[in-house]
Amino acid sequence: MARRGAISPAMQTVARKEGLGAVFVRDEVARGRMVIPANIRHASLDPVGIGIYATCKVNANIGRSPERSDDAVELEKLRACIEYGADAVMDLSVGEGTDELRRKMIEACTAPLGTVPVYQAATGVEEIGQIEPDDFIQAIAQQAEQGVDFMTVHCGLLRRMLPLACKRKMGIVSRGGAIVARWMAERNAENPYFARFDDLLEICRQYDVTLSLGDGLRPGCLADASDEAQFAELDILGELAQWCWDANVQVMIEGPGHVPLDQIPMNVERQMKVCKEAPFYVLGPVVCDIAPGYDHISGAIGSAVAAMAGAAMLCYVTPKEHLGLPDIEDVRAGIIASRIAAHAADVARHRPGARDRDDAMSDARMKFDWEQQFALSLDSRRAREYFLQHNPQGVAGRHHCSMCGEQFCAVRASAELKERVK
Amino acid sequence: MARRGAISPAMQTVARKEGLGAVFVRDEVARGRMVIPANIRHASLDPVGIGIYATCKVNANIGRSPERSDDAVELEKLRACIEYGADAVMDLSVGEGTDELRRKMIEACTAPLGTVPVYQAATGVEEIGQIEPDDFIQAIAQQAEQGVDFMTVHCGLLRRMLPLACKRKMGIVSRGGAIVARWMAERNAENPYFARFDDLLEICRQYDVTLSLGDGLRPGCLADASDEAQFAELDILGELAQWCWDANVQVMIEGPGHVPLDQIPMNVERQMKVCKEAPFYVLGPVVCDIAPGYDHISGAIGSAVAAMAGAAMLCYVTPKEHLGLPDIEDVRAGIIASRIAAHAADVARHRPGARDRDDAMSDARMKFDWEQQFALSLDSRRAREYFLQHNPQGVAGRHHCSMCGEQFCAVRASAELKERVK
Repeated sequence: MARRGAISPAMQTVARKEGLGAVFVRDEVARGRMVIPANIRHASLDPVGIGIYATCKVNANIGRSPERSDDAVELEKLRACIEYGADAVMDLSVGEGTDELRRKMIEACTAPLGTVPVYQAATGVEEIGQIEPDDFIQAIAQQAEQGVDFMTVHCGLLRRMLPLACKRKMGIVSRGGAIVARWMAERNAENPYFARFDDLLEICRQYDVTLSLGDGLRPGCLADASDEAQFAELDILGELAQWCWDANVQVMIEGPGHVPLDQIPMNVERQMKVCKEAPFYVLGPVVCDIAPGYDHISGAIGSAVAAMAGAAMLCYVTPKEHLGLPDIEDVRAGIIASRIAAHAADVARHRPGARDRDDAMSDARMKFDWEQQFALSLDSRRAREYFLQHNPQGVAGRHHCSMCGEQFCAVRASAELKERVK
Repeated sequence: MARRGAISPAMQTVARKEGLGAVFVRDEVARGRMVIPANIRHASLDPVGIGIYATCKVNANIGRSPERSDDAVELEKLRACIEYGADAVMDLSVGEGTDELRRKMIEACTAPLGTVPVYQAATGVEEIGQIEPDDFIQAIAQQAEQGVDFMTVHCGLLRRMLPLACKRKMGIVSRGGAIVARWMAERNAENPYFARFDDLLEICRQYDVTLSLGDGLRPGCLADASDEAQFAELDILGELAQWCWDANVQVMIEGPGHVPLDQIPMNVERQMKVCKEAPFYVLGPVVCDIAPGYDHISGAIGSAVAAMAGAAMLCYVTPKEHLGLPDIEDVRAGIIASRIAAHAADVARHRPGARDRDDAMSDARMKFDWEQQFALSLDSRRAREYFLQHNPQGVAGRHHCSMCGEQFCAVRASAELKERVK
């Protein structure tokens, strides 16, 4: 529609939410610099725009693992994602019976919902090599029909890259990428997603599914960052992005991974060049390997720097990364950490109005208006809980906090100083 | 001693810990680009070097507030600081009876211990203006005699800057800075620390106390960052640093504060220029104002970028910042968040050996050596606790984690791929 010059209701919604002109949004979508993942079957969707001229977005991954399968818990996590402000959600469930869970999630999810269809293709087989090429495509077709808005497909990881991956310290750490790699090695054949990319595009066009070109060769440790394997795949992703645009399919590009802080801006700039500014969706990146239990923080540091350099969406990392499946509190921690990074980058990029909420917070602080401070917080419940824990008498008339106490409160002193000096 | 060409035992210790030559450390100390805060009375001290050529350091603030006074709890926090790897600790206690607590802390603290002596000077007075100039100096003398290694003194906040501070959204948010500002306003007199800077230096020289020149005018919100008030004070701190060096007193410079991400490198570069590379000790900086409850993360983002740009020590921020006094779990969270930032910056600055521990972690991950992974973690206890929570069967023979499960474990698949491709 954008390329025909039409402005869809989704474009209008995005324009309003972003404070951008509808014509501008349409042109960005037409050019491929913004995507609005919106499957025509996803009735409950509130559309979101992802791109360099929109505010930075946050994606949260949830989903069952083969060892922990409880649909009710995953639907609770989905509710937490929406409550804590994830802009997009990916259901990474693996194992039997995920179809029904996916259906429920699409129904309940007002944010764009993404999946990694290769997990479905690989479910139930004894050996990865037993999957038929048709099965890979079939999983995509079925999920598209269900209403999935965007799909990670590891199309850029080609057979010739496997030796490059094997030279690495950590090899392949992408769950989907590892499946595709094993398939290629067992079958001695090319990546089925690459080989049948046209079939895949046909499905995406039919349902307006946005492709998220996965980085199966993202580095899994600092030592592997920015290596030959990673950039060989990126070059193919750049070609595939053009292929998507030629087929009128929306596309974004996934990025690392584990990356030393000083290499992050270079990674973003390189992606923007190679992929002609298709929206960059980074997974973290985490900036150190030695903080299991706190990878949401390692990820927030990398995310903020990546977003300032031009990344359009940040995939959260939870405190459980590298250790186990996240629970609801981990989802909460991961989302807020990523939202801090996204917001810091929006301010740093001088996006119009990005600092308004911070300024309102400062005004509320000067006035000791605690209720207003809680309301303006990224996690209002947590802010209130911490305040009450240390100030059990509540907010009424509380013109200081327990940190400095009344006599030593700098904000009080500042207010008095203003009276005296003026 | 460094300036006389002598190498002290403390310099030797620092050289060994940093993997630097002892002569190099001596020269850096002599030049003022590295400090080793080490009061001659602090017998239990394990010396630490702070400067651009040393690894990035982390400081943790603890101490009683007037509303929460429990010496045992504060001594517990001190133990937590050492356990979780703080390189320096500041006791920010205010209120009556802090003398005895400080004595116990110095005794128990193997890291350099810092204070803000103005809190003592201001304790017990009805009005700030009642403090006599001698009282300000007397508190410094007494704490130096006790064995405090470094002291924050707000010498650069001059009377003429008060109108600049009053133009701000948040005014003065430094607790010590606000006391000095009120004193100047009430007395209509110049900053007593500035006016009697020579007396102060005399005490510091006698006990080898390192001065930490406080930034009383650090911005308290993004809107106030990098303003006229902040840089007017910084210019004075630059002059005072030279004054310290001329008197053979070690000195470092404190920095912001609340700063938008894009302004952080400029702030560090400006400090290094104005203060001739005296070590920069930054407080965060936090990169957004709207995340109370999560300011350790806002702080870690700013800290990492500041450290990459050249900051030598990071003051932690805890999840309770802006809400209340931190408890032990907050201390832990703040320290680990700051250590992630410091480590990410050490890697980004390509400090020799900085990535060794990350590489060892990657090797342990490939081998599914969970015990080794816990041992290499910044917070081993937390990593183990999270792992066991989601993998209750323990580590034995556990060649995957609950995140992906056995069949979908990318690391397992990678190892098998290496066998197949080679």
